[in-house]
Amino acid sequence: MPTQTPSTACLLVIGNEILSGRTQDEHIPYFGKCLNKWGIHLLEVRVVADNKEAIADAVNVCRARYTYLFTTGGIGPTHDDVTAAAIAKALGLPLERHPRAIKILKAYYGAERINDARLRMAEMPKGAELIANPVSKSPGFRVENVFVLPGPPLVLQPMLAGIAHELTGGPPVLARAVSAELGEGAIASGLEAIQEHHPEIEIGSYPYFRDGKLGVSIVVRGIKEAALSDTLQEVINLLKDLGGNPIAEVQD
Amino acid sequence: MPTQTPSTACLLVIGNEILSGRTQDEHIPYFGKCLNKWGIHLLEVRVVADNKEAIADAVNVCRARYTYLFTTGGIGPTHDDVTAAAIAKALGLPLERHPRAIKILKAYYGAERINDARLRMAEMPKGAELIANPVSKSPGFRVENVFVLPGPPLVLQPMLAGIAHELTGGPPVLARAVSAELGEGAIASGLEAIQEHHPEIEIGSYPYFRDGKLGVSIVVRGIKEAALSDTLQEVINLLKDLGGNPIAEVQD
Repeated sequence: MPTQTPSTACLLVIGNEILSGRTQDEHIPYFGKCLNKWGIHLLEVRVVADNKEAIADAVNVCRARYTYLFTTGGIGPTHDDVTAAAIAKALGLPLERHPRAIKILKAYYGAERINDARLRMAEMPKGAELIANPVSKSPGFRVENVFVLPGPPLVLQPMLAGIAHELTGGPPVLARAVSAELGEGAIASGLEAIQEHHPEIEIGSYPYFRDGKLGVSIVVRGIKEAALSDTLQEVINLLKDLGGNPIAEVQD
Repeated sequence: MPTQTPSTACLLVIGNEILSGRTQDEHIPYFGKCLNKWGIHLLEVRVVADNKEAIADAVNVCRARYTYLFTTGGIGPTHDDVTAAAIAKALGLPLERHPRAIKILKAYYGAERINDARLRMAEMPKGAELIANPVSKSPGFRVENVFVLPGPPLVLQPMLAGIAHELTGGPPVLARAVSAELGEGAIASGLEAIQEHHPEIEIGSYPYFRDGKLGVSIVVRGIKEAALSDTLQEVINLLKDLGGNPIAEVQD
């Protein structure tokens, strides 16, 4: 069999707060480690300001040069969130409100809290596929080989775990997720036991704060469907045993 | 007096260890804070591998685009230190051992410890000006608008301080921040209105999860103290009107 050229990647970190020195970047080491694991070569990182032209320029150079381009930041509801518009501009696509993103946002915020600013988070280039957000719901998106993710690491990290199976770097990885309002410390030893019984499955635990409540999302990843289902069932059983009310999360 | 275009800068971080996730970058926040103070706008950061072509390519794009380009890393004595050669290649200059750098290295290491590998640290593009290294002596260098510095932060930081007088900056960029336990979506429209009234001030909105609570930090940045104070006060009033309890944050 011929040797395949390995997949390559670029990470584009978007945010004035990184360039000003106010916020220490956490994405570079996180992507570095994830992509190592997935056999995808992270060859370049760029950090640019919340500026449409700067973002669009970097996106067009980097999406052409690498197998995958990941962006972080600038997809919230405020005036300084310009990433979606910049990417639409870069790809020459219209910016539209994604119908399923609207649904997700309306369901999450409810009739009283949904407003026009929050609905701006549904704006994406036409044809974008959603990236599920188990922490704060507002989805990221993918267009072609560009993956658009939010800035806060606690929100981004479970989203990245959830798209691993879309990347070519090794055998495809399947993922399932379940969440419950339990602290990570409460489930840790049980989860570890499950992991030990299923060394071929990767179990990830991601704490979240949602509507003022602490919770945890468990993501199970692996290449064998049967082992994955077995593991997920054990995780669900664990969460139930500990008094949680596990809710399966939709994976794109 | 005509308004001067502010000086701009790009930071090029060179090193596989950053891209692999093994080492957490410390240069981005350090340069961000120094350049704020010096009134130089850091508009882009790139991280590339220890690869001559990748470095040369980034150097040529970025030195043309920004007033100053700073590079970090890859100027040590080992085979993976290829920055000097890459910059010589980028600028179309021969790589030579700088006579004064040779003297400095020989004096520091002494007759017994100097060797060919250490002398490689004297290799620079022809015409380079040395940048003094008070910590470990081996100098960095400047060619045109490119400042070439080492990777270890403890070595780099005093070297950067030593070249401050060579840089043309402007008034320092000032910042103030305030936080409140409110969602970004709740404040977005009010914040946008404040931004529109103060185009000379940059307003950033950063959600956070802290002690189990959702909140938002608003950062205002600019060079004029009065405009900054006015903007901050409007932000504080907005947060109060929305039922928040705004708390000033300490800035560096």
